[in-house]
Amino acid sequence: MIRTRIKELLNSTAYGEEVTVKGWVKTFRNNQFLAVNDGSSISNIQVVVDFEHTDEQILKRLTTGAAVAIKGVLVASLGKGQRVEVKASAIEILGDSDPEKFPLQPKKHSLEFLREIAHLRFRTNTFNAVFKVRNALSFAVHRFFNERGFIYMHTPIITGSDAEGAGEMFKVSTLDFDHLPRLEDGTVNYKEDFFGKPTNLTVSGQLEGELAALAFGNIYTFGPTFRAENSNTTRHLAEFWMIEPEMAFYELQDNMDLAEELLKYVIRYALDNCTEEIEFLKNRLVEEEKSKPQQERSELDLIAKLNFCLENDFERLTYTEAIAILKRSKPNQKKQFKYLIEDWGADLQSEHERYLVEKHFKKPVILTDYPADIKAFYMRMNEPDEQGRKTVRAMDILFPGIGEIVGGSQREERYDKLVQRMEEMHIPTKDMDWFLDTRRYGSVPHSGFGLGFERLVLFITGMTNIRDVIPFPRTPKNAAF
Amino acid sequence: MIRTRIKELLNSTAYGEEVTVKGWVKTFRNNQFLAVNDGSSISNIQVVVDFEHTDEQILKRLTTGAAVAIKGVLVASLGKGQRVEVKASAIEILGDSDPEKFPLQPKKHSLEFLREIAHLRFRTNTFNAVFKVRNALSFAVHRFFNERGFIYMHTPIITGSDAEGAGEMFKVSTLDFDHLPRLEDGTVNYKEDFFGKPTNLTVSGQLEGELAALAFGNIYTFGPTFRAENSNTTRHLAEFWMIEPEMAFYELQDNMDLAEELLKYVIRYALDNCTEEIEFLKNRLVEEEKSKPQQERSELDLIAKLNFCLENDFERLTYTEAIAILKRSKPNQKKQFKYLIEDWGADLQSEHERYLVEKHFKKPVILTDYPADIKAFYMRMNEPDEQGRKTVRAMDILFPGIGEIVGGSQREERYDKLVQRMEEMHIPTKDMDWFLDTRRYGSVPHSGFGLGFERLVLFITGMTNIRDVIPFPRTPKNAAF
Repeated sequence: MIRTRIKELLNSTAYGEEVTVKGWVKTFRNNQFLAVNDGSSISNIQVVVDFEHTDEQILKRLTTGAAVAIKGVLVASLGKGQRVEVKASAIEILGDSDPEKFPLQPKKHSLEFLREIAHLRFRTNTFNAVFKVRNALSFAVHRFFNERGFIYMHTPIITGSDAEGAGEMFKVSTLDFDHLPRLEDGTVNYKEDFFGKPTNLTVSGQLEGELAALAFGNIYTFGPTFRAENSNTTRHLAEFWMIEPEMAFYELQDNMDLAEELLKYVIRYALDNCTEEIEFLKNRLVEEEKSKPQQERSELDLIAKLNFCLENDFERLTYTEAIAILKRSKPNQKKQFKYLIEDWGADLQSEHERYLVEKHFKKPVILTDYPADIKAFYMRMNEPDEQGRKTVRAMDILFPGIGEIVGGSQREERYDKLVQRMEEMHIPTKDMDWFLDTRRYGSVPHSGFGLGFERLVLFITGMTNIRDVIPFPRTPKNAAF
Repeated sequence: MIRTRIKELLNSTAYGEEVTVKGWVKTFRNNQFLAVNDGSSISNIQVVVDFEHTDEQILKRLTTGAAVAIKGVLVASLGKGQRVEVKASAIEILGDSDPEKFPLQPKKHSLEFLREIAHLRFRTNTFNAVFKVRNALSFAVHRFFNERGFIYMHTPIITGSDAEGAGEMFKVSTLDFDHLPRLEDGTVNYKEDFFGKPTNLTVSGQLEGELAALAFGNIYTFGPTFRAENSNTTRHLAEFWMIEPEMAFYELQDNMDLAEELLKYVIRYALDNCTEEIEFLKNRLVEEEKSKPQQERSELDLIAKLNFCLENDFERLTYTEAIAILKRSKPNQKKQFKYLIEDWGADLQSEHERYLVEKHFKKPVILTDYPADIKAFYMRMNEPDEQGRKTVRAMDILFPGIGEIVGGSQREERYDKLVQRMEEMHIPTKDMDWFLDTRRYGSVPHSGFGLGFERLVLFITGMTNIRDVIPFPRTPKNAAF
């Protein structure tokens, strides 16, 4: 008999219908009430077991984590807490679960503990909700771009280019480390490596994305990117997914409009399509924050925070304006910032970004026109200001609790200016001839940005550690599973 | 003024409306007719240039590949070949293109040549069509699974497990190859590597997918996978994208049904949503095949072939039945196969698969229940047949011209049998404890398969080399761009 997914059963009114439920036992109370979950919903279906007429051996095996197939009749529930339940007529144990050994007992486990058993944490309510939201957000991203005629490009993961410039890279090789082929001068002979040269894992698909945008108009990537940085923080992963749209004929303003529209679209989509999960995550966060002192708790609950983002325009201002605000801010005056803001040109730290977003504007902020010296080579140079200071057409979107969630810019489309800047920043132009070709043959103004997908999931689920929003996190000294 | 995308203009009837077009010059005939393309459609918009009133310097710069912004009025075209055109009132050159140097002249280029300039081939009609179809297929895959409540899982790209068993792997490391840290016995000290142990690029997300399926029920992956095999063929890539659904409570039959449904869904979606592109690709293939002898040309054109797949059930038979057919087949009797089929147990070669699909059944074929010895450790063991031969619940889907497009199986969910098989195949069970946990705690029958995305794109676009359906192919000695 075909199984009915529990999510459908919970919404069903076909009382009296015979159904088959398959799933995993959450709890078994009083030798009578079996809570079964099949992953389709956070909510369990209650199965009423006929204690008298069920084999004792079966009853004993109805332990937390065991897999069961239940035949029975859907009935209105007399008990509290559920509208429907299944009156079991036959119970089959598909797979046992030794209650002495199964690590997920029906009690609260710490997120740290669950991270160690990431292969089993999917079976908890919290991670069911988190990965349902992650799934919905992925789909929302694709739908957003598809509706707007953007072309999804799979940019390469293995790259022979080391000029992406976004951070430390992982090497990819098939050489035998115990017998490295060497040239006469003793250096490694990469001609014998798989690709005939040194290769790395990509840190960004942007440069290849630009090639495609200058043919298709609007494109986006959505794939894994990598940073070999020894950052053990709650916001960094060595392997993470990134969304990078790139648009021909877009200037900085268009770029900001698109990014804001995308963020609002996917938040709206999650609220509409993951109502049960986000409600659960909201309550989880309230519980979690009860252990914190009052002033550290969120002012808004999760759903209120998401709605607040939808209802307000993101605040847009230049780096120069932001520096002025920060300079005269209370924490700067009172020397409470770890890095005091003194001069124009300073790179903004997390504490400064959070001050702007969480204290000063109290909403998402888009900062533009950063000093050229602290930004990448491919960003479009502005005319120097009246004081001769050089800025680029960058834009970063800062979110409460997250910091930078989007980083983007208008790109330098002028061949001469781009080459000059690459030379200043010691980027070898000879290896980048393919990139420069876009500026040689029909160059156009264009823009793009990168959205860190895990940071987005973090924001929308209200989780606080980025390792809890990707199935199997990769961090320094950890590549388990 | 906001630009209108050419795809919209070509469908517009707003005669007399002032519009702005931005794009790249394809051709400029008679100092009058400018064909402009912005990537939104294979078709160009014709711009009529007022020769008399346009600066000679501008006219000179209207070369193939140059980027332009045109203001003008949309009018009904008097010429043949287009319904509408734009009567230009102002022409701006956004980016020049030196006609002496621009590699894409308005003539036919070979696919081999275009592969060398993969960064520019996006601007050709063929690759515009190919990557539009690829984009549509990606979206169709996500939509198919989303409609069915499957959860999209991002399984890890960097893996510490080398037991995936699907092929040779790339190593991932941050060690300095010129100064490798070594233990006392001279071997490399991986404790100092980024992850504290040897790591590789994934060859499959299946094992992690199983972990998720045994919590969520139905999941799928869609991400890059890697093979470090020195295969220089038209069907192999070192980096390619794979779709891997995994379903709890699915047996082999359900698995086959889902795979067939998915393939038909995405073919239907491409036909419905890429009509113009597939029409173009159909004609391209007809042209290409004109240089071939009659008997090597396709019996059906591209669209007929796709419709044929939609209209017919895939032929399902066991390996054992297939061997019997192959043994008595004409090419086997006449010793025309390179590898003659003699005994049960032989691995099928491409020539055998093609015979079954293209000659014998003349439609897609699903082969099941392969000999255990030639399949992976995780496939579910059947009861031995009357002759004591051991088979596993594998299923491969074979497509005309492509060969294996899907490989899948019901998984071995029985702990003891799985461990026994791993030991027989020398797979270290101690590193795989996380995988075995799924069989310890609530194991259930489950199944899944892998669909090679590029092979799907190859089939639906009618292209013949897999390097032409991924933006930047990675193959032995090639990681350009």
